[in-house]
Parts: sequence; C-alpha cells; structure tokens
Amino acid sequence: MAKHISAPSFSLTVWNRTGSKAAAFAAANGARHAKTPADAARGASIVITCLPTSHEVAALLDGPDGLLASMGRGTLLIDCTSGDPAPSRATAARLAEKGIGFLDAPVSGGVAGAEAGKLTVMVGGDAALLAGAMPVLNTFGEKIVHCGPVGAGHAIKAINQAMLAVHIWSLGEGMLALSKAGVKPEVALDVINASSGRSNTSMNLFPQRVIGRAFPRTFKLALIDKDVRIGAQFLREQNVPSPMIQLAAELFAAAHLELGEEADHVEAVKVIERTGGAEIK
Amino acid sequence: MAKHISAPSFSLTVWNRTGSKAAAFAAANGARHAKTPADAARGASIVITCLPTSHEVAALLDGPDGLLASMGRGTLLIDCTSGDPAPSRATAARLAEKGIGFLDAPVSGGVAGAEAGKLTVMVGGDAALLAGAMPVLNTFGEKIVHCGPVGAGHAIKAINQAMLAVHIWSLGEGMLALSKAGVKPEVALDVINASSGRSNTSMNLFPQRVIGRAFPRTFKLALIDKDVRIGAQFLREQNVPSPMIQLAAELFAAAHLELGEEADHVEAVKVIERTGGAEIK
Amino acid sequence: MAKHISAPSFSLTVWNRTGSKAAAFAAANGARHAKTPADAARGASIVITCLPTSHEVAALLDGPDGLLASMGRGTLLIDCTSGDPAPSRATAARLAEKGIGFLDAPVSGGVAGAEAGKLTVMVGGDAALLAGAMPVLNTFGEKIVHCGPVGAGHAIKAINQAMLAVHIWSLGEGMLALSKAGVKPEVALDVINASSGRSNTSMNLFPQRVIGRAFPRTFKLALIDKDVRIGAQFLREQNVPSPMIQLAAELFAAAHLELGEEADHVEAVKVIERTGGAEIK
Amino acid sequence: MAKHISAPSFSLTVWNRTGSKAAAFAAANGARHAKTPADAARGASIVITCLPTSHEVAALLDGPDGLLASMGRGTLLIDCTSGDPAPSRATAARLAEKGIGFLDAPVSGGVAGAEAGKLTVMVGGDAALLAGAMPVLNTFGEKIVHCGPVGAGHAIKAINQAMLAVHIWSLGEGMLALSKAGVKPEVALDVINASSGRSNTSMNLFPQRVIGRAFPRTFKLALIDKDVRIGAQFLREQNVPSPMIQLAAELFAAAHLELGEEADHVEAVKVIERTGGAEIK
Repeated sequence: MAKHISAPSFSLTVWNRTGSKAAAFAAANGARHAKTPADAARGASIVITCLPTSHEVAALLDGPDGLLASMGRGTLLIDCTSGDPAPSRATAARLAEKGIGFLDAPVSGGVAGAEAGKLTVMVGGDAALLAGAMPVLNTFGEKIVHCGPVGAGHAIKAINQAMLAVHIWSLGEGMLALSKAGVKPEVALDVINASSGRSNTSMNLFPQRVIGRAFPRTFKLALIDKDVRIGAQFLREQNVPSPMIQLAAELFAAAHLELGEEADHVEAVKVIERTGGAEIK
Repeated sequence: MAKHISAPSFSLTVWNRTGSKAAAFAAANGARHAKTPADAARGASIVITCLPTSHEVAALLDGPDGLLASMGRGTLLIDCTSGDPAPSRATAARLAEKGIGFLDAPVSGGVAGAEAGKLTVMVGGDAALLAGAMPVLNTFGEKIVHCGPVGAGHAIKAINQAMLAVHIWSLGEGMLALSKAGVKPEVALDVINASSGRSNTSMNLFPQRVIGRAFPRTFKLALIDKDVRIGAQFLREQNVPSPMIQLAAELFAAAHLELGEEADHVEAVKVIERTGGAEIK
Repeated sequence: MAKHISAPSFSLTVWNRTGSKAAAFAAANGARHAKTPADAARGASIVITCLPTSHEVAALLDGPDGLLASMGRGTLLIDCTSGDPAPSRATAARLAEKGIGFLDAPVSGGVAGAEAGKLTVMVGGDAALLAGAMPVLNTFGEKIVHCGPVGAGHAIKAINQAMLAVHIWSLGEGMLALSKAGVKPEVALDVINASSGRSNTSMNLFPQRVIGRAFPRTFKLALIDKDVRIGAQFLREQNVPSPMIQLAAELFAAAHLELGEEADHVEAVKVIERTGGAEIK
Repeated sequence: MAKHISAPSFSLTVWNRTGSKAAAFAAANGARHAKTPADAARGASIVITCLPTSHEVAALLDGPDGLLASMGRGTLLIDCTSGDPAPSRATAARLAEKGIGFLDAPVSGGVAGAEAGKLTVMVGGDAALLAGAMPVLNTFGEKIVHCGPVGAGHAIKAINQAMLAVHIWSLGEGMLALSKAGVKPEVALDVINASSGRSNTSMNLFPQRVIGRAFPRTFKLALIDKDVRIGAQFLREQNVPSPMIQLAAELFAAAHLELGEEADHVEAVKVIERTGGAEIK
C-alpha cells in the first residue's frame, strides 16, 4: 500500500516496529525513514496506520515517541487496521479533543489487490474528512466506500470476515459428509457453484485449497480468528442475538489454538477433517 | 418440467394428487391424464416423481394403485424430489429386487430454470442408467451431473440448501448489527459483495428481498426447513460433527414454526429482526 | 439385573451374543442357558432384552432363531435397552399384531444400583401390562415409574442423558476458564455447589474425576454419545427447536471420535482441555 | 444485607441512587443517610458497593461526589456487585495507586439468604485484606470463600450463573419435547431427579415454577442475561473455546429482549414454549 503513495503527489515517511524493514523500504522507494511514530508524524497532514489490532494502534498514540507528540490541530489519522469499532470510537473521541480527525479505513482485496492498488477501502467517519483523504486513498484503493460513522469501516470489515469464516466452516462440514458418502468433492462443488448455495468460498477458495490440498498462506487463521472475534463482540454490543456468528467465533478460536500462528485461514477445514476422522477427497 | 417432455420424442402421461391439476395440464399439453400412479406407470419405460418429501415418494409405490403394480423389469424410476438419501437407498434396494432401476435426480434453478428448461440436475445412481435417462433429463435440464451412488443427488441438494440457509441466517445477523450501528444496508452489501464474504445470498437475495422489503414467495421456508433437516440428518448418518449446520437446522425449524407454511425462505430474516428488536434498513 | 430374577419366584433362562458369558452366568446362578433368542423365549411369559441400541433389539426379533419364532399371544417383551422411542413404537406395533405386549423400560442407577437391585426403571407402554410386570421389575428396581405411552421410557432416559451431557460440557468450559484465571477448581466447585448452578455433575462427578484426575470407566462416552443422539433425534421428531441439546450431541459425537470406544463419559472434559490448551487444576 | 451490619459492632452509613430509599432505611435501622457517595465514604474504613453492574461501580468513584474524594490510604472497597472481572482488575489497580484495597465479593443465596444473613460470599483479592474484612462479611455471609486474585469472585459468580442458565434452557428444551410426546412433566422430573441428569434447576426451580406455572420474580431475567454475558466475555478473555456457554448467552439475550425487563429468569422457558408451539404441561 505504501508503495503507491509516492512523489510527485505525496512525500512519504515510513515507520515500522522492525526498523530494518522500514529502512529497506525507504531506501528502495525514496521515502524518509522515521525512527519513532512521533518522528514519522512530524509535519505530516495525514498519518496512516495499519497494524494487527486496534490495541497496537492505541498504544502508538501516547508517550514522548507517540503520534500525539507531533500531530497537530487539523491533521488526520487514517487507520487501515482491520480493527475494532469500540476502541476506534474511543480513539476518535480523544483525537477530536485535540482537533485531530480520525477515519477507520480497513481494506479488502488481499496481497494481490494491495500490489495492484485496487483495494476496496471501507471508511467510517466524517464525510468531509473522507473527501480530503480521497487523493491518498485513491492511490491504493479502487473502490472507496463511505460506510457510516466512526467504526463503521471496522464493523463492515469484521462482518465480512465473519461471513467468510461461516462459509468456510459450513462448507467444510458439508463437503466432508459428502466425501464420506462417496461424492467426489469437485463434483459437489461443481453442483453447488451452479446452485443457490454458492459463495466466494465455494467458487474460489475450496477449488484451489481444499480440492487441490494447497493451502497457500495468503491470510492467516490467526487474523481471521481476531476479525471474527471483533465481529462477535460488535454483535453483542449492538444487542443482536447471533448464535451463528458467535459459534463461528468459537470454532475459529479453537482452530487457531489447534493449528497455531502460521496456518492459513482455510486450513480451519483440517480441524473439521480431524474431528470427523476423514479427509475431503 | 413436464411441459418440456413432449412429442414427438416422448409420449407423456401425468398424474397428480389433485386430479383437476393433472387433467388441466393434460388437456393443455397433449398428455394423457392417469387416474392413479399405477395407471400412469402402465407401459412406461421411465417414471418421474417430484414430490414434497421422500415420504410421499415411498407412499406412492405400494397397493393396488401404486407404481409397483405396473412397473416391470427394465423400467426406471427417476425421483426429482428434493429427498432424503437414506430412504432413497431403501427404495432403490426394493426396486432392484424387481429389476427396476432408480435414480435420485433433484434439481436446482427455481421456477425460472424449470420454465426455461435450464435446470441443474444432480443425479445419484448407476452411470449406465443415467446414460439411458439423458434424453429425457436433457429436456428440462441444462447441466446434468452424475454425483455418485444412489442418494448422492439428494445429499448434494440437501447440502446446497444447508449452505443457503447458513448464508441467509449469518448475513441476517451481521446486517442487523450493522444497521443498528448506523450503516446503511445497501452500503454494507456493496462492500461485502466486493470482498471475500460474498455469496449468492448477499449478491442476489438480500439486495432485492431484504433491502427492497419485497419477499416474493419463490421458495417456501417450509421447504428449506425440510431440506436443511435432511442435510443435518445426513451429516449425523455420516458421523461428521457439524455444529454449524445443526444450528442452522434448529434456527430454520424455529423460523418455520414462527412464520408458518406460506412464508418465503428469505423471510427467516424477519425472525432475526424480531429477536434483535430492529429492522435491517 | 438378571441375578435378581431368581427362584422360587422366577425361572430364568439367559441368552447372550457371547455364548460363553451366558453359559458361565447360567452355571453360577442356576439358570438355563439358551442357544438362541428363540430358544430363550420358548415357554416364557416375559422376555427381557437389554442391548446397546434399539437396532440390536429389532434385529433379535426375526428369522428362525428370533424371538418371534417362539413368543406367543399374551406374552410380554420388556426392553431395558437405553433405546430409541421411534423404533420402539414400531416394534410395539409389530408385536401388537401378534397379541404380544411391549414395554420400554430403561434403567438408571449405574452398576452399583444394578448390583443392589435398586435401579430406577422408567417404563413406557400400557399401564395394565406394567401392572403385570411389576413383580419382575421389582426384583431389580427400587423406583418403578410409569412414564407414558410406548417410547416414553426411552425418551425420558435419553433426555436425562442429554442433561448429563450438557452439564458435563458446560461445567468443563467454565471450570477451565476459572482455572486459567488462577482459581483452584476445588474452590470453584465448593462455591458452585453452594449456589444455584449446582448439579449432580458438579456435586458428584467433577470432584472425583476432574479434580482427582481419576476417570473410572463406569459409563462409556460411546454410550452417552448414543444416548444424546437419541435425545437429539427425539427433539427433532417432536419439532422442538433445541439448539442447546443439538449442540451437545455434536460435541459428544466429536469427543467420542477423538477419545475412542473405551473412554469414560466424563473424559469428554479432556477434549475441552485439549482445545483450550490447559488442564483444569 | 445492610440490616445485618449494625451496632454495636459497626457504625453504618447508607447511600442509594434513590435518596428516599436510603433515608427510609436509615430511619428504620439507626443508620446515617449520606447524600453522596463521597459523603458516605467519609471517615469509613470499609466501603461496600452493590450495584447492577461493574459499570455503575466504576462510575461511583470519580468526581467531587465520588468515593475517591473521601477514601484514604488504608481503607478498603468491597464490591458485592455481580460484576465483571476485567473492569474489577482495572478498578483495583487504580485504587492500589492510592493505597486503597479492593475485594470483589459477589454473593449467592437469593433474597432469603440475604434476609437470614446466610449468603455465600465469593471473594477475589488479597488474602490479608480478606482477613480484615471477615467481621463485616460474617454479618451477612455464612460461607465466605477466598476464590483467588481480584476478579476471581466475579468470575466464579458469572460461571455459576452461566451453569444456571444452561440448566434452565436445556431442561426446558427436553421437558417440552417430553410433554409434546405425552409424558407428564411431574413424572419426567421425578425420574430425572432420581437420575444422573438432575440439578438444582430440576429439583427446585422447575417443580415450583414450570410445573406450577408460578413464576415468582425472585431474580430477574435481565440480571441473569447480564451475568451470562459477563461469563461469556470472561471465557473469551481466557481464550477457552466455549460453544455451549456462548450459545447460552445468545439465548438469554434473545429471551431478555423478548420478555422484557420485569420477567423472572426461569420465564426464559416461555420462549422455548413459544418457539416450540406448545406448553410444558
């Protein structure tokens, strides 16, 4: 994403918790390498964060090296983290007291979308702030959608991930039973993908990964676990009884604990296979 | 479907539990109207059944007016019911003792697909029997898939319906929470449909029915309840622990009890809305 | 149970699928050893069955060696199997055509209760038949309860087992979280057992087996899995949406698959511990 | 509870959000009526809070009228709220900075136990602080249990309530199916209460409330919903996959939304009855 934010339109400063990564990136892309968040934000009109969780974002704000040490009135923080609506609302409120704007702006589209600059960006926050941010969001995003108030971007992203998790798990259950009954999985997918039960998961993920037994690690199970957990928490905050998404949160939490930090999200199917005592084949 | 089975290739006889329906159809389509199943099957090389459940199919076989009274060795029963794998295997075994073939051949594609003769037909049973049945299946089917042994067609159909049910319910939960948080549902769908959580449900069903608040009754909730129940039972027979599909079965059973016999399958979302105390809007 | 049915009140004939077991029992207890079910039933006014499932009971009826070959009008079949209401109703109907009575009469009380002749017997079927059966039931039962029509005994037994399963699993979840948070399990049980959340499981099973890490194999996980499955199926037949008991059925099916045929029912907690990555201690 | 804290051993000051309640209590019990939390805490060595949720407790601390305005080093806050472990740990940390002790000390035993001074008190926090608090806790508690670190009392209480909720819901499902099958509920309870599936719920709550159709409002559904929600959140914080307790949280959230603020906790069964289309009778 950062590669697309370049001269002559933009002057880019980068910071990373692993300094060597930021240094290498800066050297290769003509950017300035900052030693601290505060250093990175100095003089910037827009600061963009993209971290594992909202917890890390909040931890970046305070202290002598924190973003707030150098962000001034009229600047804007855009958080591309797949974060959590409630902490984002709290962060936005803190920033507003200092005259700093906040947009939550998580993305979808994967590594391929990021490299091509064709991400979907789902934005929560003030429409006027978003209007000012469009030039920079357009550098890496193809579809920029204003979703609603602060947190709305994070909320939609989390619900999207919850749908993905539900689709993976339910299709895994169904496909394993069909396989045990003697139905070839490619035949089952061929029929489902021509019928009403099809999804992105059945059309794109399962053919390659489950049928092909290739589980390229494009998106970690650990991250979808975190995302579904955010979605589940969001549903409880909104007081929507939601047995199905809450169940998905439990199943992915268990899969994450069983398969570890490096597994891909679609490998959750292996837990279904281990439980059911057979492989989908 | 029956309209496509016509002269000069085929000579069609029809029977319906409501005699007047069969009579009207026969008069309009140049078919013979049979008074009983036995009468309908007399002299036929292929008999096609399409009924609410496998229970009704089994009930059609016996007695002086039943199909078995006139079906002879070498004939074939094709059951297009969205039926149940286990009873179908039992029926197939009974027929095999008399030299009668059996294929389960449920369809997908809805009323539109049936009228256009472009259904997907998922077939379980002997491949040689299917080869012989292709001419008649081709009259109403565009995609004829041999799925596996007897019951495989019913099993895939039931799993497809279970996916559909899971997608409807989980998207309903997520969309209601987003709506309560101030996100417009058309915006949420726009983002999800550009992201990894999309499905036929999010792309085709929700835009019209949930956003548009039009719930055309194209497929009854009562029928998807029955189908998901078959799928859930099939998963238990295959000994695949399946918390998500079993939960879907419970939720749709409850929705069916609450909304009654005439509701459309997508109206299940109304139960989520009633429970969560708000409407998706 | 059979030991209590003895002279002078009763003349006992025994049969077992493993002939040597029946022979040894007969020799030690002054009973006659029958070679086949038909032989066992010959001349008997009451036949008592006690098998793993209703499937085995039904399989005992037919053929030249089956019970029906020698049971006559006016005799009575008492089935002490922890069986399934629907097949029992079918069996009762078949027997009724021949003038043979049927009672389902599963028991509770464990090995200790059986040895002491102090079982609880839950009986489904005709009250007059039960009145005639009281002398024999009283030999091994302390509390004989007429539960309702045929199948009612099996149904109550299955629901009791479903409660047991739900209690074990939910307490396992809660205790593991408390343990991970630094609460000693004996303290947690001490409090819960003085409070509204107590159950037979928290008062009797967990103190010995989970706290003591002794898992005496008094009742197999494989059997409670079967029983909960019967209960779950019964709930669906009665059209009672039941997300909690259906979920218990899935969790115990998975535990059974993971822990195998010899595990005790309370060892299901080990699956919770393995999943949660810690032990309750 | 406050009635038991009396002269000559203790000098009692009371405050309530509804001033008239506190005034009436003070007049009737020889206590001092404070106008604000700060006023109530002035000069006290021990302050006891008992509020609906931890949120209200935290809100009582700050501001000119808050407890912290008058609590000094060496004093102790005992929180009898059925509260939430995580916020309690945060509160304890804040108080520790000021040299003020904190114990979470929720109770069980109901209105009857409170009136008789025979509550069970489950205490989290420092053992030495608890030792100092024993005289006052003994006035209303019969069984005082040190459960573990700060939050442990709240955690055990929440898990106890989760067990209660699970027991109520699962027994409701089972009893409704038995009732629909023609089993009288008092017979079903009689058998279950003599068997392994019994619980406080089956032995004490259902006989009076469900069989007797009396739903005395001794403990609100709204409160058990809150408690189970705390338990469910605690399980997620401890990273214990917990499908059953999470499901209970959803079911009670839905029941609370359906039955409103005044319903008793056992009335949740009415939602099962409404869903299943019959009454347990």
